Amino acid sequence: MSEQREYPTALGASSRETITLLGHDLARDVMGEVGFGELAFWLATQRRPTPGETRVFEAVLAALADHGFTPTAIITRLTHLSAPDSVQGALAAGLLAGGSRFLGVTEDCGRFLHEVLERQETLPTEDAGWDALALETVQRQREAKRFVPGLGHHVHKDGDPRTPRLMEIAAEEGLTGPHLALFAAIGRVHPQVLGRTLPLNGAGVCGAALADLGLPLELLRAFALLARTAGLIGQLAEELRHPVANDIFLSVDLRNRPVDPDPYSPDGL
Amino acid sequence: MSEQREYPTALGASSRETITLLGHDLARDVMGEVGFGELAFWLATQRRPTPGETRVFEAVLAALADHGFTPTAIITRLTHLSAPDSVQGALAAGLLAGGSRFLGVTEDCGRFLHEVLERQETLPTEDAGWDALALETVQRQREAKRFVPGLGHHVHKDGDPRTPRLMEIAAEEGLTGPHLALFAAIGRVHPQVLGRTLPLNGAGVCGAALADLGLPLELLRAFALLARTAGLIGQLAEELRHPVANDIFLSVDLRNRPVDPDPYSPDGL
Amino acid sequence: MSEQREYPTALGASSRETITLLGHDLARDVMGEVGFGELAFWLATQRRPTPGETRVFEAVLAALADHGFTPTAIITRLTHLSAPDSVQGALAAGLLAGGSRFLGVTEDCGRFLHEVLERQETLPTEDAGWDALALETVQRQREAKRFVPGLGHHVHKDGDPRTPRLMEIAAEEGLTGPHLALFAAIGRVHPQVLGRTLPLNGAGVCGAALADLGLPLELLRAFALLARTAGLIGQLAEELRHPVANDIFLSVDLRNRPVDPDPYSPDGL
Amino acid sequence: MSEQREYPTALGASSRETITLLGHDLARDVMGEVGFGELAFWLATQRRPTPGETRVFEAVLAALADHGFTPTAIITRLTHLSAPDSVQGALAAGLLAGGSRFLGVTEDCGRFLHEVLERQETLPTEDAGWDALALETVQRQREAKRFVPGLGHHVHKDGDPRTPRLMEIAAEEGLTGPHLALFAAIGRVHPQVLGRTLPLNGAGVCGAALADLGLPLELLRAFALLARTAGLIGQLAEELRHPVANDIFLSVDLRNRPVDPDPYSPDGL
Repeated sequence: MSEQREYPTALGASSRETITLLGHDLARDVMGEVGFGELAFWLATQRRPTPGETRVFEAVLAALADHGFTPTAIITRLTHLSAPDSVQGALAAGLLAGGSRFLGVTEDCGRFLHEVLERQETLPTEDAGWDALALETVQRQREAKRFVPGLGHHVHKDGDPRTPRLMEIAAEEGLTGPHLALFAAIGRVHPQVLGRTLPLNGAGVCGAALADLGLPLELLRAFALLARTAGLIGQLAEELRHPVANDIFLSVDLRNRPVDPDPYSPDGL
Repeated sequence: MSEQREYPTALGASSRETITLLGHDLARDVMGEVGFGELAFWLATQRRPTPGETRVFEAVLAALADHGFTPTAIITRLTHLSAPDSVQGALAAGLLAGGSRFLGVTEDCGRFLHEVLERQETLPTEDAGWDALALETVQRQREAKRFVPGLGHHVHKDGDPRTPRLMEIAAEEGLTGPHLALFAAIGRVHPQVLGRTLPLNGAGVCGAALADLGLPLELLRAFALLARTAGLIGQLAEELRHPVANDIFLSVDLRNRPVDPDPYSPDGL
Repeated sequence: MSEQREYPTALGASSRETITLLGHDLARDVMGEVGFGELAFWLATQRRPTPGETRVFEAVLAALADHGFTPTAIITRLTHLSAPDSVQGALAAGLLAGGSRFLGVTEDCGRFLHEVLERQETLPTEDAGWDALALETVQRQREAKRFVPGLGHHVHKDGDPRTPRLMEIAAEEGLTGPHLALFAAIGRVHPQVLGRTLPLNGAGVCGAALADLGLPLELLRAFALLARTAGLIGQLAEELRHPVANDIFLSVDLRNRPVDPDPYSPDGL
Repeated sequence: MSEQREYPTALGASSRETITLLGHDLARDVMGEVGFGELAFWLATQRRPTPGETRVFEAVLAALADHGFTPTAIITRLTHLSAPDSVQGALAAGLLAGGSRFLGVTEDCGRFLHEVLERQETLPTEDAGWDALALETVQRQREAKRFVPGLGHHVHKDGDPRTPRLMEIAAEEGLTGPHLALFAAIGRVHPQVLGRTLPLNGAGVCGAALADLGLPLELLRAFALLARTAGLIGQLAEELRHPVANDIFLSVDLRNRPVDPDPYSPDGL
């Protein structure tokens, strides 16, 4: 037998009379006073963001919330078809597809830029310096036969509209930090190395912006997942109004296409 | 062989040049313009909320985001301990604990109130009428030996501070609808039936408020899960700074308590 | 501070020198001596099954292991496409689709039969008695406008080949208990009530057999999930050899159909 | 519009009259004829294992099925406490903790041994040759400051009893292949390089045995997860008989320790 230890947390706590969140009275100082994006940032950093930081952060969440019938969306709808009693299961299953390929670029790009920046003793102060660092960075990747995270998009080949917009919002809020500066410079110089012009993609610029906001690098993917949770709820709501999951299922399972649409249907009575 | 069908969605879509979300230009009209709570509401209802609706909705999300070391938080931390490479797995595992007991009261209460209201031909217009309906409702539950969702709390026995605050915010925004009105009346009259005074709990009032906002009843639990996703990211961030998951694990697994703290540790070299 | 408690378990335990499972020396008495189906039964009941019980149990697992491109299989493949680094995520996502509709019939049928049997003071001893109970059971369900779990199949309209085979195996092993007896009687008498002949489906007979084996009713779905875990590994193995998940994804996401098949492809270099 | 494609699978398929699994008649040739371990092997490789292969495979599954209160077990119990309606969620959450640390050693060790073997033009035919290869292997890891997967255990410091037993079973069945041979040699020679004797652990020897059986290296973790699914069902069954999850929860959440044990309890009526 040993003494039982206590586990500290600076997040939610309560006593008989009070509930606190992040050290503040939840009911009086948080509810009705703090927006949800602002709160998510605060929970992750234990530092309340400025209005400008909140705006950049929420712009990132908007950029990543929903991209139509991605695997995450298809999976959430199929899981709901199959286990409609468990909304938590449908959301969790969709999020499990937010891994290294889909949604992963955000984290990969933020980490990649960070690693480059960490190796510098001093950071550039103007565009020419960023361009030189970017050129060296793209060349090193090319020599190692590795691609540059955030560069290229299979659909938006002439430019991803999210990228200039997020850079603009960050600039408006005075929040263009070194990650965004390096990412922009990569966009300017990579044709010199690669011989063709590729777009800076939206997932990548989101990673750069999140890193500039000082959010933990190990959790950049988590913010993409937070955004996607809202998107998946939207997908479920649309599925409830206009179901397509059963049609998707049957389009794959051609050989088992049933005569009536409901597998294990209650044709017993 | 058959013709391949297309699946419609009003959420995210894109072409080579454009990306739209909810029918709006994502980069120009959504990013930087729409807060995250507002966007989550919009995605779920395909109706842009008013600022007042957004404030009530975000107050609910704040109320449900994090309650300290709940099962959801413990599970997310333990999953991260065990599989640190998969942030999506840690979040998904935590959300799977958001079921019928924890986080479920929000949905149960919203649905319960809705079912009572649906049975009425006309709704009361003043407190006396709501009290009569509430009295009949509590009596019917008592006779059926069923409890009233949202009534009672194991810690906040003298009142849950979130409840009056959320009612106040809804009133400030002119958004006290029939679900909140009935819930408040239940709070006033239940001692007459039960012989003791119980608090209206925070999870319950959140369900009433979400139902009054017109959010889909089948997805009320999903909004609690969205709020909790932000909380679980906070828990992961705290775990990265001050790890406790291994201590929690070892406190349960007393007999296997290792000499060095890292199971399967690289003591090979 | 309080004393720390210990949690007992009769499953796995270890000391510096020994490892036990279910109270037996794992290395000496379990490994190489106990088959996997036998072990799964033993873990769930803490009673070692007879060879006959093992055979019936493994026949059930075989019947439920894989049904082709069900939602569980599609989801596991899509999750692997999207997050190939997390095999645990791909399996977990697929299992989350094993809920009330798909895979749920096994549990529903076992529980339904059990509830009928529990209401009887004495059980029939011959077919005529079982037929009378079955007739009453089907009539009661029809009057309540509820269907009989396990009755009907959307594909195998003239009979599900698994049903007679599992009944035969149980009979060979002397393990036809009251759940299988009642289920068989329902198969004989339901046309008198319903006016048409429906097959007893394979998921239903599996539930009856598992209940006759004395496995916990609350976990009948869990055995279907265990069987399906083996099936999903088969699906993943096939996906690695002959990938189809990306084609499935693109068949749904027609509007976003990329020119090159790899979303977020490394076209950077 | 385009023609709809069909997706081939060699696993489960059905028509109105027949159900096949792996090309065999499910009811006639698989149910009652094929054990569950044998079937899982067959599904993963599309090759029916010999009785000896099945015995080795099932010995591995036994070795990995349950290790007491590991994170996987704690998580499954806590998820069930919180969402008792969703057995699939409780199992899926537990499996999500089967990642790179817990359960990952099996895959890491199998892959590591395989990479060493692939680099050899010819493989040794006797112990002296294996020892030379093992010596070179351990030295290379030491120089790279990387540990040898499968070497060392935090509890079984004088030897993991599973390791000699699995090697013995493989030898009895004539199934000691190059992965097991190299692993055994590492056990013999590593003290010359490391200056101390470490045990070959059970998770590692399982990876070596699975690789020798020709199972897909990318899925070695999946077999550990299959074994653990059976273990987690055992944990759930024990939790139903002797609940401890609420005590575990309360031991962590000291400050919120409720007066009555049931959070959100129905104290309404």
